[in-house]
Amino acid sequence: MNMDQMGSPRAPQLFMSTTELSRYVQKVFPQAESYGWSVRDLAPGNITVVMNAGDDHLRPGGTVSGPTMFALADITAYLLVLAHIGEVALAVTTNLSINFLSKPKPGALIGQGRLLKLGKRLAVCEIHILSAGSETVIAQATATYSIPPDRPAGMDN
Amino acid sequence: MNMDQMGSPRAPQLFMSTTELSRYVQKVFPQAESYGWSVRDLAPGNITVVMNAGDDHLRPGGTVSGPTMFALADITAYLLVLAHIGEVALAVTTNLSINFLSKPKPGALIGQGRLLKLGKRLAVCEIHILSAGSETVIAQATATYSIPPDRPAGMDN
Amino acid sequence: MNMDQMGSPRAPQLFMSTTELSRYVQKVFPQAESYGWSVRDLAPGNITVVMNAGDDHLRPGGTVSGPTMFALADITAYLLVLAHIGEVALAVTTNLSINFLSKPKPGALIGQGRLLKLGKRLAVCEIHILSAGSETVIAQATATYSIPPDRPAGMDN
Amino acid sequence: MNMDQMGSPRAPQLFMSTTELSRYVQKVFPQAESYGWSVRDLAPGNITVVMNAGDDHLRPGGTVSGPTMFALADITAYLLVLAHIGEVALAVTTNLSINFLSKPKPGALIGQGRLLKLGKRLAVCEIHILSAGSETVIAQATATYSIPPDRPAGMDN
Repeated sequence: MNMDQMGSPRAPQLFMSTTELSRYVQKVFPQAESYGWSVRDLAPGNITVVMNAGDDHLRPGGTVSGPTMFALADITAYLLVLAHIGEVALAVTTNLSINFLSKPKPGALIGQGRLLKLGKRLAVCEIHILSAGSETVIAQATATYSIPPDRPAGMDN
Repeated sequence: MNMDQMGSPRAPQLFMSTTELSRYVQKVFPQAESYGWSVRDLAPGNITVVMNAGDDHLRPGGTVSGPTMFALADITAYLLVLAHIGEVALAVTTNLSINFLSKPKPGALIGQGRLLKLGKRLAVCEIHILSAGSETVIAQATATYSIPPDRPAGMDN
Repeated sequence: MNMDQMGSPRAPQLFMSTTELSRYVQKVFPQAESYGWSVRDLAPGNITVVMNAGDDHLRPGGTVSGPTMFALADITAYLLVLAHIGEVALAVTTNLSINFLSKPKPGALIGQGRLLKLGKRLAVCEIHILSAGSETVIAQATATYSIPPDRPAGMDN
Repeated sequence: MNMDQMGSPRAPQLFMSTTELSRYVQKVFPQAESYGWSVRDLAPGNITVVMNAGDDHLRPGGTVSGPTMFALADITAYLLVLAHIGEVALAVTTNLSINFLSKPKPGALIGQGRLLKLGKRLAVCEIHILSAGSETVIAQATATYSIPPDRPAGMDN
């Protein structure tokens, strides 16, 4: 009997390094590169992703667009989940709810992801988006990922 | 005393035609054009928007990306709210929650928006996304818009 | 290969009648009775539930409380999912997002549930709450249910 | 020009003590007492609320019911917002989205609320629910409150 069977979440444990994670996503999801993201920090249960919002991602008034912030939230959660389950390209977002709190300045955005649950079938993450160099949360998101049943051997969870 | 003051929502009423709406959005929000949207139907409380998801918006496997479906949901809700409040470019999304239900086929996507509430300060919409020619809802979203207080004269609501 | 494996949702099909459904819920979930609910209509993909919000469920000003409307949304979705998967008491809510649109009058509330997705592992429903005798949606909710893997024999989906 | 007009959120500042807050809620919202809540900690931007989930709030299997966890999330957010805006009984929940992550044990529940945004018209809070004595987040919620325009004098924000 493991913790998951007892109804308690597993303590999160990393299955990939920052380098493995970045290389894998570039391979399976090359379009994501247009967002100019990179992983700044990775620790059990937590990730920090940086995205350089370029001119393509701006709204009138010079602020970053909603779809761009959505994309950062989604990528942050995807990288966080992948790092904890290993190379499973098919993990899919089932829900993403985002609250836009204040207007970001143009420039780099930071996505801070926290893994709230890593179950056999679902992972739930909380994401805070900040402008680089600021402590103000400009958008908050919650994302749910469905984890496919056919996970790599050796990952008995 | 109007219905809104009694705590009941107003019956939705259009303030812009399809042509006025499209022209206005192209003027204030030219980036939106990259999504290739057009308004197919507009009626009090309801809108149908078509979006041609091009190659830029695809994920591995040829399906439409999450940020693209987010963008369609957001544009559908924005157009729906604008059509009912008039030329107020600054209406801003405060929350968008999207459920991804099944994978879309590449090709045109349809966004069906329904106005659930149009208050003095907030508008709430429900959006169903379908592949063109199909009846299956592939994504469902709920969007909340904050309506700025400085609305044009003659719109006493 | 069935439709689900092709990524398309199954057409919803009922596995329980209104009477079977009500009897089953009273057996496995007797506390739900304190909400005074009953199933008014049940059809493939849709349900209508009535709840008599009593004095226990009121807020100051005589309106129905948030937790009561949450409970109606949750019960409506639970009954809707159960009716389509059969006697699986352990289906559990994983997310419920509710938008409060206008204040209900005291008295009976109606929950209208629509099944948007019925997959092998997740079901997603949209719920509209109305005051009895009114057409105004006073609250809108989206609920996600996790469906346990050990479903009764003969339900190969 | 204040920070709010510049698009940045105000730094949160308390307008009520724990005692004032508890007394006020007991006066305007006596039904809330049935949940047996009390404020454990209150600091700028953060609150901790304890709720003793009694027998009335249990589901089959002895776990705390969904509506009870919803109520704790809602009360935590309501108390948090009130503490930062002063005696404004009419602040109303416009959206509450809750993710149920794992089953709570019967017994006291803890609601930890964090104020993400306090604008002129909307407040957004993040709430984590834990079983007393545990570090595991068993439910996560995001709540949005609409703040009425007629706030007490001297609160120029």
